[in-house]
Amino acid sequence: MVKRIVVIGSGAAGLTAASAAKRVDPEAEVTVITEDEYIAYSPCVIPWVLDGRITWDDIIMHDASYYSKERDINVLTRTKVTNADANSRTVTASGKVYGYDSLIIATGGTVFIPPVSGIGLKNVFTVRRLNDGKKIEKAMKDSKKVVIAGGGVIGLEMALSMRNNGKDVTVVEMLDQVIPRIADKDMAGVAQDHLSAYGVKFALNAPLRSINGTDSVKSITAGDETYECDMVILATGVRANLEIPKMLDLDIGILGGVSVSQSMRPYRNGKEVENIFAAGDVVQCESAVATGPTMSQLGSTAVKQGIVAGKNAGGGNSVSGTVASPWVSVIGNIHIAGTGLSENLAAWYGIRTISGKAKGYTKARYYPGGKELMVKIVANADTQTMIGAQLIAGEDATGRINWLTEAVVNRTKAEDFLARAENAYCPPTSMVRDVVISAAEDLCRNLKKVIQ
Amino acid sequence: MVKRIVVIGSGAAGLTAASAAKRVDPEAEVTVITEDEYIAYSPCVIPWVLDGRITWDDIIMHDASYYSKERDINVLTRTKVTNADANSRTVTASGKVYGYDSLIIATGGTVFIPPVSGIGLKNVFTVRRLNDGKKIEKAMKDSKKVVIAGGGVIGLEMALSMRNNGKDVTVVEMLDQVIPRIADKDMAGVAQDHLSAYGVKFALNAPLRSINGTDSVKSITAGDETYECDMVILATGVRANLEIPKMLDLDIGILGGVSVSQSMRPYRNGKEVENIFAAGDVVQCESAVATGPTMSQLGSTAVKQGIVAGKNAGGGNSVSGTVASPWVSVIGNIHIAGTGLSENLAAWYGIRTISGKAKGYTKARYYPGGKELMVKIVANADTQTMIGAQLIAGEDATGRINWLTEAVVNRTKAEDFLARAENAYCPPTSMVRDVVISAAEDLCRNLKKVIQ
Repeated sequence: MVKRIVVIGSGAAGLTAASAAKRVDPEAEVTVITEDEYIAYSPCVIPWVLDGRITWDDIIMHDASYYSKERDINVLTRTKVTNADANSRTVTASGKVYGYDSLIIATGGTVFIPPVSGIGLKNVFTVRRLNDGKKIEKAMKDSKKVVIAGGGVIGLEMALSMRNNGKDVTVVEMLDQVIPRIADKDMAGVAQDHLSAYGVKFALNAPLRSINGTDSVKSITAGDETYECDMVILATGVRANLEIPKMLDLDIGILGGVSVSQSMRPYRNGKEVENIFAAGDVVQCESAVATGPTMSQLGSTAVKQGIVAGKNAGGGNSVSGTVASPWVSVIGNIHIAGTGLSENLAAWYGIRTISGKAKGYTKARYYPGGKELMVKIVANADTQTMIGAQLIAGEDATGRINWLTEAVVNRTKAEDFLARAENAYCPPTSMVRDVVISAAEDLCRNLKKVIQ
Repeated sequence: MVKRIVVIGSGAAGLTAASAAKRVDPEAEVTVITEDEYIAYSPCVIPWVLDGRITWDDIIMHDASYYSKERDINVLTRTKVTNADANSRTVTASGKVYGYDSLIIATGGTVFIPPVSGIGLKNVFTVRRLNDGKKIEKAMKDSKKVVIAGGGVIGLEMALSMRNNGKDVTVVEMLDQVIPRIADKDMAGVAQDHLSAYGVKFALNAPLRSINGTDSVKSITAGDETYECDMVILATGVRANLEIPKMLDLDIGILGGVSVSQSMRPYRNGKEVENIFAAGDVVQCESAVATGPTMSQLGSTAVKQGIVAGKNAGGGNSVSGTVASPWVSVIGNIHIAGTGLSENLAAWYGIRTISGKAKGYTKARYYPGGKELMVKIVANADTQTMIGAQLIAGEDATGRINWLTEAVVNRTKAEDFLARAENAYCPPTSMVRDVVISAAEDLCRNLKKVIQ
């Protein structure tokens, strides 16, 4: 019998899952159902489209007909799933009933809308889907003053994009630093200073209280101040879309995502459900560094989980390990990156930390064109394992944060990392001793408070 | 009592060891004895000085007076150690006797001189020390045709440097590929093609048989052919300098280096010697991937080992783990890098291998300026652990090879790497799924020959 696999959602997790399922079981009948108009694009690139580096057409890799012709996958766009039933193993979309043998939930997340007045005013935008970007692009033409609500990575990338378009830009953030939670204040401060040099203004400790105006937005109030503006972009975090999981009575975890096992299967009343899978921004999964769950909500994680969910839906036996969620953002001339827990976030989990830091360059000290590089590594003070890292560099942050992630996901003790880690060296590409290793040495010193 | 620490050699290992010893025991009397005129420079950068990117002055970081003033370390340049005696714990240099409590041997290596006629002719050079570079620079002015003997990394970097100076350049290599041993033919071939596009010529399977001429070199014979030239650069590998270790009756290992433990202590008759240390190009140490020893002979390894040797000589208790020897070379517009064993070298050790490969880009597919990236991962077919990797990229090879090295030194199984590895993603710095992870997926497929 031909296996029927239904995928709900056409983001990174959904489409990757569909393709992976088809590779494992080429005979399977795979159907992707999505409300979206555009599929197979990278929402992460919207800031760079808006500042003119790339076109919308460039970032849309495939359309539904590509999936149909090239991969024998049926993608239904602009189609809303209105019901999902685990007993009859069916989903209903646009009035039609689809039976499934395996169901993959990749419904992603939606921008959290703060509970303030004025959200519905003209020129108040979220930034999540391609059409959000197109709306901003259109409104940008007549805009002079933009407020970005939320100083996370997306907020900062959008702030610089708007600044590069000549706008007057203010970022309002309710906490006392930018990139809260995933970065520590010492590192985030460098990113903030860098953006300030571009002319972006910041209001910290300034929770959004209201968006003001009658038809179109005229100002916002954040903290005790009011900021004039003619456009607001909400970069206020993402919440999982739980409508479908709730219809299927799946367990929702304490972080607000669908709890999944390492095979990407959800739970119902604490028991793993065999023929349903969930992947991407809708799930919470086992943390590599803390006892308990974590929510990744990154495109890279969505792809990784989508592959595992798809393989297993197709009859495979694949697992996705615990999650450290490495991230990187390019903000002007710096790359800021992190993995695992910041000291901030570790404190939230109740974990005592000790950190080490080092500064240096991306090339040999004397080699022309080298960029500054700053690395911080965070260890659990009790177990002495590396639980996170952050770095800021003028270039080449990504490979280094992946390197540190490998140590974090393997729960490596700091002294073992220092003893074993090696770095490749060539004057045009690194210092003879990479700054990552120097930071590990500082960490070990701080852990032991004796030089040895 | 003040501890007397003597270091023989002023390369990366020696000077790093001296500084590390002094940090652990600031009261120690540290003396570095070296035959060299210049100290604290990076010999790896000679090719880029010769093509005019940097000056000799740039690459000399410190002189002896710096070490004396800033670090209270006494550096004796142009001073040859003529005797070392373990019983009396003394070394003799330029007629003077120095007592030691701890001795650090960092005598490095010397370019292997092939046993052929004509080595003594004018314009036949090695490339190892700063003065070698200065001699080449001087002779270059009147040179038109250069032969590089040896197609390893240093040979190729020198070849391109000479080519950038407008010379007619031929590389002769006795084996059937460039970058033999540490790279496989499929990867090395890409580097060779890249250099060919710059106009560098190659003769493979062409062992050097003679260097011809009366006063100055006129040609060389390699394999069955004779190649006219007016300069020869020998990049024919490095042999450990064993004079001092032999005076001290230290055990020399099967690879021709001083055998050392992970605390960088040498052995005498199989027993670890307590108060002598050896580090850098003179040693062989425990391989991370094969049963038995390996010789690293890399600047980065010398620094790492120097720190451990110095700390321990100063009274610390530090270890350097097993060695995978990651390397990277910039050749024109490509970075080629490797770690652990190539399939080539694994075969030499008798290890059966299976490999996986993937191609992609250094940025998101649609993002402007991305460079091609090719990754190969090698696993032990029996244990399924990752034992090596190679990659070629237009940029950002170093962080990725360090990442793979972390997996190799931890003897990670391929499927565990695939399950746990995560990559940071931002369109300007990576694909959503890094090529390293795609190569791991290919490797797992090949290991299992079933998709799961």
